[in-house]
Amino acid sequence: MDNSLGKFFTITSFGESHGDCIGIVIDGCPAGLAITVDDIQVEADKRKSGARVLATARREDDKIEFFSGIFNGHTTGAPICLIIWNKNIDSSEYDQMKDLPRPGHADYTAMMKYGRFNDFRGGGRFSGRITAGFVMAGAVARKLLSLVGIEVLAHTVEIGGIAARPKSLDEIRKNTGQNEVNCADPVAAGKMARAIEQAGQEGDSLGGIIEGIALNVPVGLGEPVFDTLEGDLAKAFFAIPAVKGVEFGSGFGAARKKGSQNNDPFAIKAGKIITLTNNAGGILGGISNGMPIVARVAVKPTPSIAKSQPTVNIKTMKNASRAVRGRHDACIVPRAVAVVESMLAITLCDFALRAGLLPRVIK
Amino acid sequence: MDNSLGKFFTITSFGESHGDCIGIVIDGCPAGLAITVDDIQVEADKRKSGARVLATARREDDKIEFFSGIFNGHTTGAPICLIIWNKNIDSSEYDQMKDLPRPGHADYTAMMKYGRFNDFRGGGRFSGRITAGFVMAGAVARKLLSLVGIEVLAHTVEIGGIAARPKSLDEIRKNTGQNEVNCADPVAAGKMARAIEQAGQEGDSLGGIIEGIALNVPVGLGEPVFDTLEGDLAKAFFAIPAVKGVEFGSGFGAARKKGSQNNDPFAIKAGKIITLTNNAGGILGGISNGMPIVARVAVKPTPSIAKSQPTVNIKTMKNASRAVRGRHDACIVPRAVAVVESMLAITLCDFALRAGLLPRVIK
Amino acid sequence: MDNSLGKFFTITSFGESHGDCIGIVIDGCPAGLAITVDDIQVEADKRKSGARVLATARREDDKIEFFSGIFNGHTTGAPICLIIWNKNIDSSEYDQMKDLPRPGHADYTAMMKYGRFNDFRGGGRFSGRITAGFVMAGAVARKLLSLVGIEVLAHTVEIGGIAARPKSLDEIRKNTGQNEVNCADPVAAGKMARAIEQAGQEGDSLGGIIEGIALNVPVGLGEPVFDTLEGDLAKAFFAIPAVKGVEFGSGFGAARKKGSQNNDPFAIKAGKIITLTNNAGGILGGISNGMPIVARVAVKPTPSIAKSQPTVNIKTMKNASRAVRGRHDACIVPRAVAVVESMLAITLCDFALRAGLLPRVIK
Amino acid sequence: MDNSLGKFFTITSFGESHGDCIGIVIDGCPAGLAITVDDIQVEADKRKSGARVLATARREDDKIEFFSGIFNGHTTGAPICLIIWNKNIDSSEYDQMKDLPRPGHADYTAMMKYGRFNDFRGGGRFSGRITAGFVMAGAVARKLLSLVGIEVLAHTVEIGGIAARPKSLDEIRKNTGQNEVNCADPVAAGKMARAIEQAGQEGDSLGGIIEGIALNVPVGLGEPVFDTLEGDLAKAFFAIPAVKGVEFGSGFGAARKKGSQNNDPFAIKAGKIITLTNNAGGILGGISNGMPIVARVAVKPTPSIAKSQPTVNIKTMKNASRAVRGRHDACIVPRAVAVVESMLAITLCDFALRAGLLPRVIK
Repeated sequence: MDNSLGKFFTITSFGESHGDCIGIVIDGCPAGLAITVDDIQVEADKRKSGARVLATARREDDKIEFFSGIFNGHTTGAPICLIIWNKNIDSSEYDQMKDLPRPGHADYTAMMKYGRFNDFRGGGRFSGRITAGFVMAGAVARKLLSLVGIEVLAHTVEIGGIAARPKSLDEIRKNTGQNEVNCADPVAAGKMARAIEQAGQEGDSLGGIIEGIALNVPVGLGEPVFDTLEGDLAKAFFAIPAVKGVEFGSGFGAARKKGSQNNDPFAIKAGKIITLTNNAGGILGGISNGMPIVARVAVKPTPSIAKSQPTVNIKTMKNASRAVRGRHDACIVPRAVAVVESMLAITLCDFALRAGLLPRVIK
Repeated sequence: MDNSLGKFFTITSFGESHGDCIGIVIDGCPAGLAITVDDIQVEADKRKSGARVLATARREDDKIEFFSGIFNGHTTGAPICLIIWNKNIDSSEYDQMKDLPRPGHADYTAMMKYGRFNDFRGGGRFSGRITAGFVMAGAVARKLLSLVGIEVLAHTVEIGGIAARPKSLDEIRKNTGQNEVNCADPVAAGKMARAIEQAGQEGDSLGGIIEGIALNVPVGLGEPVFDTLEGDLAKAFFAIPAVKGVEFGSGFGAARKKGSQNNDPFAIKAGKIITLTNNAGGILGGISNGMPIVARVAVKPTPSIAKSQPTVNIKTMKNASRAVRGRHDACIVPRAVAVVESMLAITLCDFALRAGLLPRVIK
Repeated sequence: MDNSLGKFFTITSFGESHGDCIGIVIDGCPAGLAITVDDIQVEADKRKSGARVLATARREDDKIEFFSGIFNGHTTGAPICLIIWNKNIDSSEYDQMKDLPRPGHADYTAMMKYGRFNDFRGGGRFSGRITAGFVMAGAVARKLLSLVGIEVLAHTVEIGGIAARPKSLDEIRKNTGQNEVNCADPVAAGKMARAIEQAGQEGDSLGGIIEGIALNVPVGLGEPVFDTLEGDLAKAFFAIPAVKGVEFGSGFGAARKKGSQNNDPFAIKAGKIITLTNNAGGILGGISNGMPIVARVAVKPTPSIAKSQPTVNIKTMKNASRAVRGRHDACIVPRAVAVVESMLAITLCDFALRAGLLPRVIK
Repeated sequence: MDNSLGKFFTITSFGESHGDCIGIVIDGCPAGLAITVDDIQVEADKRKSGARVLATARREDDKIEFFSGIFNGHTTGAPICLIIWNKNIDSSEYDQMKDLPRPGHADYTAMMKYGRFNDFRGGGRFSGRITAGFVMAGAVARKLLSLVGIEVLAHTVEIGGIAARPKSLDEIRKNTGQNEVNCADPVAAGKMARAIEQAGQEGDSLGGIIEGIALNVPVGLGEPVFDTLEGDLAKAFFAIPAVKGVEFGSGFGAARKKGSQNNDPFAIKAGKIITLTNNAGGILGGISNGMPIVARVAVKPTPSIAKSQPTVNIKTMKNASRAVRGRHDACIVPRAVAVVESMLAITLCDFALRAGLLPRVIK
């Protein structure tokens, strides 16, 4: 296992779905950042918000606690440990079914890798609940980035094949939190919500696409040839369970364009160099080019579905079938929006520190 | 800059497009691997092969030299340094045009990040030529993986919107090297070649999609929650210039499927657990599941095109335009196939060593 | 700050002397290690034991809690978070005196590095109390090493200039825990105890030397040229506050010997290659040679002393003086013995995993 | 093997004693540093200078070549590869004697770790010649540090039990390069030279102690709790073959002092906070305190001696004896002075970059 991410702003994740808690240690945060539990709580609550109406997900307060690294309302430069407790746990389904790996889930690979010692309850380390830790770290990262004017957003652009129409940044900012699927297009949002409800009733699930955007990122973040901005962002996004694809700017669409169409022409605007289009998604040669960073992340449909599916019994090595009971979202995309935003913020923070854009002590 | 990749099988890249040489240091290779210069040369030549007919690319022998780490025809456990010399260099275009960043290129971001000291000639560190080093390391990785039966392949699946029809593994193995676009579908290959030629004649360029496949990967490679197999593979792929998207298995398509369609049912076959479909692309929870690893990589059209494009003069800060002369491929996808294959091999090698699948000394 | 150590067996430290808790996250521990809170508690108590009679140190239960990574009494392969709570806190001295850095302490450098945000209370991150986390991780490492027969010991060899006579391994094992200075020589132990008592009464303090020994370490641990066994052990030892010197085998004494005296002759004994002497301290070329690893660590006298010392007021930038009140040991050597033992175990564990000596899953 | 050192200023070592070359790749060097081959050559020659009269060491030009990272006489921000070729090679002794490990040498541990594939010729990766790469990197680091006024020195303070008298910084600067043992005390230098000559005539060898000093290091370098300045310096020093001990400031002597003697009193001098003594060797809590960094490194006597020594034949597993012929220094201390200086400079450079003391681009 490797549970640390980042070179300068390093997060270390611990905890299990049905263990005592979910925790994160943030190392490398500059001293002097004013931060309160509430600042973090607001972001963490976003991760739960998508589930409001639609989800049958387990209810947790998820009250955040600081364990270290904060003194007199400011970061001290020491590692920051943040925790939420697990309370509302029901492991009965998992105990019964532990020999029947859920299709599409990490049950099988975890069993094979960690043997009979794997904490299978609720998916253990492979549960989406682990991302609560990412969101706590993301809240700290967002606060840091805001000091240099960088803004980080994410919104649902597609669920179950229903695509949102393109929206302006203002609409994205305004609308995203206003509906239960975190989509900036209210019309599409309504359709998405109904599709999720329908899928849930059928014992099935839906996937979708989330777009992450970072604004006011200066030119120069990214450390090629290997620590490219795209590469490290992709790595961070793939740590979110169920992500199966990542693209930047025109992404897979670029493969079908001609160079003359896909190249973004440079131009001078208000004394600054910009590009007239943003097919590059704000990244050239693995380095930010001053335009908005735009990433899209493909999320597969929740593997846990109530429909019966073929599987095997790994003890008897016989074919079997299994329907997954328990508290699962029919679509995790709405909840994953806050996680995409967090991974984007965390990674940019790491690069901002590496580039000297953020100071080691905030005055 | 960060020019090292991998935790256990670590490659360090150096050299510039128009400098003395392109080099790679491989650290962590087990002792006792039988390897010759020819073993590496064969793979490196693949990177050039795609260009055979179509490309106007510069001609280099690219004769590989071992500088360290080999003794009596075997690796010694010491770092292996491999070099190719740059000989056929013409930097005149770059000298003239260095204040006019090429749209779609790293010229602008490199200038901004490294200032007037950046080695802009031929794209410097941002040239596709840097990947010659990746391919040399990939050749060593492939040899190591072959010791445990792992086979790594890559082939062109789309160029300029022309998609190859799905082909069997045998056809991929047999056909890919037989045409100048490295495509397993001979009919599509012909169309792709003509489309590239046409684009070149128009002073334009094309992008495409490359699929990488790894066979016989045992269950258990990948170190979640952060060093997932998808995440580290994606990071490696994004180090290839022009890559703008990466997906695994059903990838972005998964976002449009239902859970019941996308989940791969487990089944027993010949006493072994397999999945009946492979929408997961061989990876569940960031860990290999024993099925073929399948990754697809989107390559944007070559940014260097002969057509005139709007840009800016960064010295005068005025709008300008630029046509890119010099020796550039109208499509780099065919040449990038060997690079995708190499990044796949290098990353799997790293995880195989981390998992103890490969010994530290080969007997 | 960088609060993670180790490449494969990685510990991440958090917490402050007067914060909520001291914690450690262990990442990379193989799955399947049987371990209980009591196994850890025993080791953690050793760190306190030295203080029994002599020290005026603050009294803490230091009851250990597992937060993650343990399931059914075994490690799961997931990160293990261990915590002790801080309860018996009195920060009044620190509040009053925070502008007067204690000579010999990190107060000054921490203030300068982290500014006014530094958590100065009780020394914050620079307190010896942080090593309680190291000892918890060390307890896990010792258990792992014991699976392959490796035994790790440490004992006091000198305090305040009083040297212990050389003792056999059996005496070291038997006697070390039997006296309040953790010394294998009972006669010297008595003198050391009296010297500490005396120094304390004079408002002064003493330093000393601790020897760490690892037995049954197989040939081959260490990853030169940079991750040498000596280098990584030294780095780990220097993380213990107050350590100012580290040597292996004949150490600084080797500088005064001739090659013919210092070289350890090889010989065959019971069909095995051994050396007849152990001036190398079990390490040749940065790699273990099968003989006992022997390291000696110099600990400076506790900087916090009751005697008044010259210092400066960093606010007024005037000369001042300060006597340190509060609960400080007149000699931390006895308590540091468990910490040296722990750093030795943690580092060997990291190398044992890197060398494949320990499995990823314990059957 | 792990052949990379440093987090921000990272050096990667390759090459073998009797291979084609010795090389080093420096990654993370800021762009814009003016540097020539001669700047490096001067430092590299220091490593040879000590041997002038005394040593029978092999004669190599050691002409340095830049392979990458330099353009128009400045660093570009890209990795810098530096090489010296091996020319004057005679491996006959090693071929004959490869089954008889030299006592005190890495022959035995290397054989056991890398098996029959180990490049034993001339000690392979374990030869002192590898440090030529460290010195090339050190020359770059010294140039960087000089930009912020940091000066790095090293000198011999003891050889074969003959100690130099303490000398002023000016004398150290002036005298060190003036004699063949690199000692600032001319009288002691003469005695040391004679002692080395004598030992060589007796077929024996001598060790010694080197002191490294860094001046004008600002307060704040070091990243505790694990990346302490002492810890990372010690790790770097232990990468020098034959180093068996490292201490800072009063070092092992601190163990025998009282707190009131060892604590360095703070005082105001010319408006700046200083300490009146420097028992801390410029480091408190793992962080530089603004006083000179002072480290002492114990070097064991050269293990290769002409005298016959008991060893074993690892093929026949019988006791044997061996006299080491070939070209070996009777004392490597004089040559190691430049290496100690280099490791000090490299490590400080890494911390200076981490602390933001050096810019990413030098204007």
